[in-house]
Amino acid sequence: MAASLLRQSRPCLRQLTRQPIFFRPITSTIRPLGASAAAASPSQASEQLFFPEEPKAPIVHTKIPGPKSQEAIERLTKVFDTRSLNMMADYTKSYGNYIADLDGNILLDVYAQIASIPVGYNNSSLHAAASTPQMISSIINRPALGNFPQSDWASILETGILSVAPKGLNQVFTAQAGSDANELAYKAAFMWRRQQERGGQDVEFTAEELESSMNNKSPGSPDNMSILSFKSGFHGRLFGSLSTTRSKPIHKLDIPAFDWPQASFPMLRYPLDDPKNAEYNAKEEQRCLDETEHLLTTYHNKPAAIVIEPVQSEGGDNHATPNFFRGLRELTKKHNVLMIVDEVQTGVGATGKFWAHDHWDLQDPPDMVTFSKKAQTAGYYFGSNTLRPNKAYRQFNTWMGDPSRALLFRAIIQEIQRLNLVQNTAQVGEYLYAGFERLAQAYPKEIVNLRGKGQGTFLAFDSPRRDEVLKSAKTVGINIGGSGGRAVRLRPMLVFQKGHADILLEGLEKVFQS
Amino acid sequence: MAASLLRQSRPCLRQLTRQPIFFRPITSTIRPLGASAAAASPSQASEQLFFPEEPKAPIVHTKIPGPKSQEAIERLTKVFDTRSLNMMADYTKSYGNYIADLDGNILLDVYAQIASIPVGYNNSSLHAAASTPQMISSIINRPALGNFPQSDWASILETGILSVAPKGLNQVFTAQAGSDANELAYKAAFMWRRQQERGGQDVEFTAEELESSMNNKSPGSPDNMSILSFKSGFHGRLFGSLSTTRSKPIHKLDIPAFDWPQASFPMLRYPLDDPKNAEYNAKEEQRCLDETEHLLTTYHNKPAAIVIEPVQSEGGDNHATPNFFRGLRELTKKHNVLMIVDEVQTGVGATGKFWAHDHWDLQDPPDMVTFSKKAQTAGYYFGSNTLRPNKAYRQFNTWMGDPSRALLFRAIIQEIQRLNLVQNTAQVGEYLYAGFERLAQAYPKEIVNLRGKGQGTFLAFDSPRRDEVLKSAKTVGINIGGSGGRAVRLRPMLVFQKGHADILLEGLEKVFQS
Repeated sequence: MAASLLRQSRPCLRQLTRQPIFFRPITSTIRPLGASAAAASPSQASEQLFFPEEPKAPIVHTKIPGPKSQEAIERLTKVFDTRSLNMMADYTKSYGNYIADLDGNILLDVYAQIASIPVGYNNSSLHAAASTPQMISSIINRPALGNFPQSDWASILETGILSVAPKGLNQVFTAQAGSDANELAYKAAFMWRRQQERGGQDVEFTAEELESSMNNKSPGSPDNMSILSFKSGFHGRLFGSLSTTRSKPIHKLDIPAFDWPQASFPMLRYPLDDPKNAEYNAKEEQRCLDETEHLLTTYHNKPAAIVIEPVQSEGGDNHATPNFFRGLRELTKKHNVLMIVDEVQTGVGATGKFWAHDHWDLQDPPDMVTFSKKAQTAGYYFGSNTLRPNKAYRQFNTWMGDPSRALLFRAIIQEIQRLNLVQNTAQVGEYLYAGFERLAQAYPKEIVNLRGKGQGTFLAFDSPRRDEVLKSAKTVGINIGGSGGRAVRLRPMLVFQKGHADILLEGLEKVFQS
Repeated sequence: MAASLLRQSRPCLRQLTRQPIFFRPITSTIRPLGASAAAASPSQASEQLFFPEEPKAPIVHTKIPGPKSQEAIERLTKVFDTRSLNMMADYTKSYGNYIADLDGNILLDVYAQIASIPVGYNNSSLHAAASTPQMISSIINRPALGNFPQSDWASILETGILSVAPKGLNQVFTAQAGSDANELAYKAAFMWRRQQERGGQDVEFTAEELESSMNNKSPGSPDNMSILSFKSGFHGRLFGSLSTTRSKPIHKLDIPAFDWPQASFPMLRYPLDDPKNAEYNAKEEQRCLDETEHLLTTYHNKPAAIVIEPVQSEGGDNHATPNFFRGLRELTKKHNVLMIVDEVQTGVGATGKFWAHDHWDLQDPPDMVTFSKKAQTAGYYFGSNTLRPNKAYRQFNTWMGDPSRALLFRAIIQEIQRLNLVQNTAQVGEYLYAGFERLAQAYPKEIVNLRGKGQGTFLAFDSPRRDEVLKSAKTVGINIGGSGGRAVRLRPMLVFQKGHADILLEGLEKVFQS
């Protein structure tokens, strides 16, 4: 029933005006196998496909994990913790939006390595970038970038990472993953704050500071500063970043943490643009802004910065309005606190803008923006020289990022631009959201609090039987993830198209019907 | 004068019985340019070279940085902090033990990207490994290893990282760099300790623990546990690892730190095997053991683990005897505290054993051993299932390491085995140490406290005018680094041979004569 509902308002599929792109799969074994999974949607036949040789539909041969995967899991368990294992993947047979396993199953992947695959498995443009002499040299001659940068490092940054720098930010400190990217941003914030307190960058450290720092004691290691984060926020799992992570106890239990404050993140009623939710939501956002201001001005360990995600992405896909974020920017300006926007999961196109905070139309840009995941490298952008520490070696480590990963991000950026993938994601996101609206009408007990309208494909809904839905989805050929305690989160790649949206919607409908 | 001294006791250079290996440089432009640098030592002519097409000697055309490098540095400075920049490198022209810059200068590199290049620049075996379909797939299809491991992950671990696991350790948790490798080991230690206190892995968390952890408060986020480290130790720069780092104030200033204890590391008299130092050193080591035991039993935040480097590598190249480390192992066993050995800088062959702690001949292996740098990937080894947390997702992150880096480490291991490079390093280390002994006799004011005998090429000495020596070394074609406040540290690659040792010794003699 709903399947036909889903199709009734499909827009013209020829609206994409770009030239056809021809990709070839890396292996010849990943053709659709004509199995029993859902029939291909008609939209696939008429839409110009980024991966024309993708399977036309998921293929499910066995239960997952099947016998070959089971065997591989048992072997891996001997040396590696596999209790969080979701699926034993065969990446040589994965292609485009489809992930393959060892048993011949090929699933539509809207989880995408926890939101970290940007432009499809075995993307041929990335394959070419990964085969160049420059890439190979970067892999085998990895430099200590702070001491011995490679001569093309400026060019790699300028034509890659910095070519997509958020407005107002023109410098970067490269890192390895989201967690250390955030911690390095926190370190920059603490040094900035102490420099202000000290009276400027030319004021030398005192003997007491030098000595006490070696004993982890104040004033050298200050015990009265903090980073303010938000309830349900997620910023990583190392000791500093974990102190700002407020997602779930299982992430935090037994690990010492800093005494840093957390403000409430607005818990809004969806859809955000429904007039009947407007008053409640505005009030809730103001409450959270007031609480934030209270903590900024009264918390015993004074915040040097706040850190916030544009959408709380691990903590349950909690959205807020641009008003809230603009309010935060005003508060941080008013109280001389830095604003760090954690775009580790939201960045690089998934919300239909390159950076999710582009949706906010801020007057003053954030002070720092951190990135990782779809960038396939990590770091933080900043715009002010006052965020460069006053001396060398204060913000430093051996590798300071990885040129080979920066080269890959450059290739990803080029692919995004070539295929206009941010716009694609915005358009497909609208189509997908409309499909979920119809599905929610048909299955109101299965889809609750649908959210992410206007946010590209970065959609989510609450599901009263969430874990069961995630599991059942595999049986209909969909690999999908959750966030928080009850949300189903969609994290398709940027090459996700309307045909894939149809398959996803029809697959989930089958799950709801079962 | 000393140059002839250096040669008088040279052993037979044909003693290496392995077959000749033929490498080809990646570019054809890195031949020796017949410049004015020191003439090739005769040992190079007769020694079987790992890189036969290496320059026969360093080449210094211009002051460093020369005009082209200057220009590149100015460009990079606009977007990247270059105040710690040592040399703008051209890795396409670097080869074997030699690093090239943009002005045609080619230096013998005994710093090797802060001890992180294992088997030479543009090593052709690594070049081959970086060009395989498996490598390319790993680069462009990077998995979330904890959820969706690639099907060959067990095999990559078994044939690579785990094939060189320290004795007694058979599991690994992969990471990205030394700093997070240590933090993940600390997290494992804290979870282990709290599990013991709680009464076993089947005891559930209390409601109070669950709730308090979300507020960064005890008991969920315990405020009475610690990691004990040693004065002058270095374990990284993120918030947890930095709390155990005790190298220099510039690494720690302005960054909040945990209230964790530090014990004295023995400050010994060198050479360690000189009988007239024996009594003093034994007493000093006992003093440090006593202090450690005192802290283990009385510090208000009880240590769950100690972390220690086999040689304090950033903090000034401080050595201790196997007795000291065996004493520590006994103390940790006695007081039920874990022993984490940080082999980030010492590991992978540089001390003439694959792991530096192999020199200690421990009865019980360390509980965890961390690695990075020359491994070109990172993580920690462990041997006991009690160090796996009691539930999934407690030790987890998106990428959990990087299969492409694990593949590279496997190729490094194979190259080390093929060329017998650990033994090479042990032998060349003896030769180099003997050369430095003679140099120290000739220049006793320049070389003080020579150390590292029997530790491969992991040598160091104190230099009263250290920073000047490091700088002058470039003028004679040597790239060399320091550690601590006054040490010159040698960190050659594992492909460093006797001919390179001659060039190094003769180059430094010129510096001392100037």
